[in-house]
Amino acid sequence: MITSIQNPKIQQVRELLAHSRARREQGAYVVEGIRLLEEAWQAGIQPSGVFFSADLNPRGMVLVEEMRLAGFVTEEVEFSLLKRVSDTENSQGLLAVLPYRAVDLPLNANFCLILDAIRDPGNMGTILRTACAAGVQSVLLSSNCADIFSPKVLRSAMGAHFHMPIATKSWGEIQEYLNHSPEPPAIFLSDVREGQSLWQCSFTEPTALIISNEGAGASDEARTLTTHVVHIPMPGGFESLNASIAAAILLFEVVRQRANP
Amino acid sequence: MITSIQNPKIQQVRELLAHSRARREQGAYVVEGIRLLEEAWQAGIQPSGVFFSADLNPRGMVLVEEMRLAGFVTEEVEFSLLKRVSDTENSQGLLAVLPYRAVDLPLNANFCLILDAIRDPGNMGTILRTACAAGVQSVLLSSNCADIFSPKVLRSAMGAHFHMPIATKSWGEIQEYLNHSPEPPAIFLSDVREGQSLWQCSFTEPTALIISNEGAGASDEARTLTTHVVHIPMPGGFESLNASIAAAILLFEVVRQRANP
Repeated sequence: MITSIQNPKIQQVRELLAHSRARREQGAYVVEGIRLLEEAWQAGIQPSGVFFSADLNPRGMVLVEEMRLAGFVTEEVEFSLLKRVSDTENSQGLLAVLPYRAVDLPLNANFCLILDAIRDPGNMGTILRTACAAGVQSVLLSSNCADIFSPKVLRSAMGAHFHMPIATKSWGEIQEYLNHSPEPPAIFLSDVREGQSLWQCSFTEPTALIISNEGAGASDEARTLTTHVVHIPMPGGFESLNASIAAAILLFEVVRQRANP
Repeated sequence: MITSIQNPKIQQVRELLAHSRARREQGAYVVEGIRLLEEAWQAGIQPSGVFFSADLNPRGMVLVEEMRLAGFVTEEVEFSLLKRVSDTENSQGLLAVLPYRAVDLPLNANFCLILDAIRDPGNMGTILRTACAAGVQSVLLSSNCADIFSPKVLRSAMGAHFHMPIATKSWGEIQEYLNHSPEPPAIFLSDVREGQSLWQCSFTEPTALIISNEGAGASDEARTLTTHVVHIPMPGGFESLNASIAAAILLFEVVRQRANP
């Protein structure tokens, strides 16, 4: 049983939780909790280390045992030490180090989401969770977005990372990816006031939707890529929506139009 | 200038920020920051105390001066003390104590929102902000919701409190309010799977929408009140939406149907 915070494996977990640079350098990140680790495991991601404490519930113990039997390293950590290392307020007594893996963005995606400088990890995670529920096939992030493997993004996304390809790219790479599609999508930029109402836009053809930082607005690079500007009418006379809320309304308008073409 | 944390006015601010019980007992709450206080001031709410520090920017100073000239008590607080008292990470150097005021719920609202045990303050605030943008005319909260005057709800709602009537009620009072409307609304309960798709529902007649706690699901009282159950189809095969996201998709479907009847 690991009992010391000086243990090199525990030190690695702490670094990966705290620093996006450590994650990039080591090509690894940490997930916490039973549900997230179940999702990762079902998605075929092979943990490089699984750490649990005695308070882990039976469902979690079954998962750890399954991983151990499959040949992966599982280690018990002293209860109070795992709590101390955890990034969550109420640790379930389970975390794992997972390796980055190559993301294959589908070449013929007809529903793409592009995030432009979304820096708030909670918003980012919520957007990923919503996009996954809406059936988005490809998520592209500008390089100044929050790190998708930060603990808070992983938590708010509730496992969306393991169901949907997500890749951080330069704007040049984003453009190249979209242009190389057999049917290049119309690229819609969400704006507060400009452009057509979302209900007047047609989203039944291949569509890419750009969501920008609500404070800073759209970047020049996002505007350059854009083929259509779209806005959400707000009859309340209170013109203000959180970025994750605007994303949800737009994503589910695409779903609506495709369900009732 | 106030320099001591022992100052009774500063003690009151700390209590009102920290405890919903203190807010209820004193019938008062604290707003922080220029934008929120501007919204409250424009809505005609009379501060019982305004506290600022020397680092407040010119726009904030103009607001403070306006309040002082209108006869309200404004007091300078030492920079580091106001930072210490503040609930925000980056205090702008401005906060005010505001009195509760009576909420008049319109009797003929044709767009109501009912929150059922929404306990997360960030979610609650985001829902209020979205409801205000969507033009909701009346918001009713079950008594086990988060306190609408908690600092985090006020922050996430971005001023929605000052644009829209919001009242915490018992389920009996909620029912009575809805029944006494000249045109009692259809009452839609949002569910994960059950009921009609939101796109098949008609929201052009008077509508009340119930949003429940995403973990616990709908309460028995909410189900009793319900006339229609509605769900959001999720083609991604990942059935999970944050309560504030589900609320936004439903609220803006009402807006869509009324914009394009």
